[in-house]
Amino acid sequence: MRPDEALHLRLLRLLRDHGAISRAELADRLQIPRPRLLTELDRLAAAGFVSEAGMAASRGGRRSTLVELNPRLRFAAVDLGASSIDIEVVNGRLEPVAAYAEASDIRSGPKAILHRVSELLAKAKADGVYERLDGIGIGVPGPVSYRDGVPVSPPIMPGWDRYPVRELLAREHGCPAVVDNDVNIMALGERHGGVAHSIDDFLYVKIGTGIGCGIFLSGQVYRGTDGCAGDIGHIMAEPHGPVCSCGNSGCLEALFSGAALARDATAAGRSGASPALADRLAASGALTARDVGLAAAEGDITSIGLIRDGGRRVGSVLAGLVSFANPSMIVIGGGLAQLGHVLLAEIRSVVYRRSLPLATGNLPVVLSELASRAGVTGAAVLASDVAFEQASE
Amino acid sequence: MRPDEALHLRLLRLLRDHGAISRAELADRLQIPRPRLLTELDRLAAAGFVSEAGMAASRGGRRSTLVELNPRLRFAAVDLGASSIDIEVVNGRLEPVAAYAEASDIRSGPKAILHRVSELLAKAKADGVYERLDGIGIGVPGPVSYRDGVPVSPPIMPGWDRYPVRELLAREHGCPAVVDNDVNIMALGERHGGVAHSIDDFLYVKIGTGIGCGIFLSGQVYRGTDGCAGDIGHIMAEPHGPVCSCGNSGCLEALFSGAALARDATAAGRSGASPALADRLAASGALTARDVGLAAAEGDITSIGLIRDGGRRVGSVLAGLVSFANPSMIVIGGGLAQLGHVLLAEIRSVVYRRSLPLATGNLPVVLSELASRAGVTGAAVLASDVAFEQASE
Repeated sequence: MRPDEALHLRLLRLLRDHGAISRAELADRLQIPRPRLLTELDRLAAAGFVSEAGMAASRGGRRSTLVELNPRLRFAAVDLGASSIDIEVVNGRLEPVAAYAEASDIRSGPKAILHRVSELLAKAKADGVYERLDGIGIGVPGPVSYRDGVPVSPPIMPGWDRYPVRELLAREHGCPAVVDNDVNIMALGERHGGVAHSIDDFLYVKIGTGIGCGIFLSGQVYRGTDGCAGDIGHIMAEPHGPVCSCGNSGCLEALFSGAALARDATAAGRSGASPALADRLAASGALTARDVGLAAAEGDITSIGLIRDGGRRVGSVLAGLVSFANPSMIVIGGGLAQLGHVLLAEIRSVVYRRSLPLATGNLPVVLSELASRAGVTGAAVLASDVAFEQASE
Repeated sequence: MRPDEALHLRLLRLLRDHGAISRAELADRLQIPRPRLLTELDRLAAAGFVSEAGMAASRGGRRSTLVELNPRLRFAAVDLGASSIDIEVVNGRLEPVAAYAEASDIRSGPKAILHRVSELLAKAKADGVYERLDGIGIGVPGPVSYRDGVPVSPPIMPGWDRYPVRELLAREHGCPAVVDNDVNIMALGERHGGVAHSIDDFLYVKIGTGIGCGIFLSGQVYRGTDGCAGDIGHIMAEPHGPVCSCGNSGCLEALFSGAALARDATAAGRSGASPALADRLAASGALTARDVGLAAAEGDITSIGLIRDGGRRVGSVLAGLVSFANPSMIVIGGGLAQLGHVLLAEIRSVVYRRSLPLATGNLPVVLSELASRAGVTGAAVLASDVAFEQASE
């Protein structure tokens, strides 16, 4: 990156995260001379990224003009789940101006899914939400080569392996595009607008259908050598545990995840171990993690026990990762975070007991604040970052 | 760091790692104009860091003067183990010009140990090894606050907690000093002159009296929020395993480490399970990891089994860390690396079986090349880096 690009990126991120700001304060914050700032602002205004926003309140001397991101900037943020599409179109400050959500099966393959994404974006355009897009960020539920902009051997996404997602989106919309995995974008979202705001080293643990971990180190997403860092769902949590979809036994997500919890709840309902779960099973024909959460909230001992067992397993894997990585925060997100305090208390208890005191002395283990919006928020951050990086090209 | 400092650091590291080099090639490699290079070289020569080394072979045009690090540069590299002191005094290229090693008990406390380090260095000076030191790097067997230059709550180092090691060494020798933990300096050493040469993301796993892990991410040692990243000896490897010195049960190093292996070997000798170990126990009165290695080499099934069990446990913890961090190499070092192929084969087998194929497709798991010299080599790298960073101050 050339020096000017780095400056453009800092300047545009400041306007994105802070809002309208006076030229005087901008020069202060960026620590550059005012003439240089004015030159840069002119360039970015010509490129359509910034515009003037009236006069600032006086600081004693000459009144300074306010600068803001161009109000017409629009980014598309797409969060593809195993069974859902979530889209937000946001402005330069990443505030949603339109949102779309629907059920969808990722196994329909890339052509069908990306076609549907295009239809939803075309609808937004027809509704006057945007004239043109300045960037697109998309998260997918599987491993991604971030450099190449393609999914790589994603286990639950048949047909998507090395499909040129980034290239197709960029070409169709004539703007920069970026692809990452769903857990990384949730971590990014939580850092931008959630509980991990401004934290540089933290782990975002998604417990949903599967389990994954977004890793923030030194203020950046850490992706590893092949882009698959954070695949903690297949860490062994119990040597002789149940067989996992990956072929090994005792993997964390074979013991506790949306699928595993539904399986254990159904067994408890059928065996009569839990009358509460048996009633729910009889009423709906199938049980989900949500049923376990509701039964636990009503005091069902078996359901509380299932959640505690799960928390213990997650905690034991996280304790190891705390010993290894010494992060400054752990955020628990994903669908099963709805199980709330019972789950969190058990995770905390194991992590604090099993890790080095030095590493846990000041280690918050907290629930995601953004919940289901973490993904689209992070996708919007990525979309704006890639657009800002290319602003001076 | 100011731009000039960054340039000085790059220039001095290049001379350290490459040796004498012509001015023309230096300007090429650093991608700076020749006049600027000459100015910088003058400054560094005045500060005593570089000197001329004759003329380079002609490249067709004017012959260019060779530049090298001042031959009088001397760094002290100190590796404190639980029961040993290793010191090397090295020149600018980190080649040893003198070495001292002796048994020593870290529990004697910082005053006695650092006094002995000073005596050994004074002896080197009296022998004409150096006139003055340009930097000191020291590794200690426990957690360190790298920023503060002090050990922090080190479990096997009574009396060392927050002892001002860096400050005292720097003051005594009138040069920059730097303190890190023993595993980080071993990883640094292996990257400078061993099997991990030029690898940016790797794990260095030390299996000795205890177990620890040096983490290299993006070309730098990763130390974590509190400086205690890599404390993998206390990751749970077996839920109902033996009680560890830390108070938990089933920690990796309670199952396999120098101490654990000696304990298990002694039990096998006493019970008669292994006649080979029983003979060795009768002969020497006590067994160590070395006895197990020798008995295994002679075909003792029990000893081979103990090493395999250990390798399986280490492998199962490392498999989790590979899933989490997706490194590009794992280096096995420390005293128990002497157990060699049997240990390595078992670790590899478990790591390859238990991690995501994407993460292990091209993941070498190899033995340390530098063995017991890894620590002093890394301490020398740290000493030179800190001296080079301060070269322009």
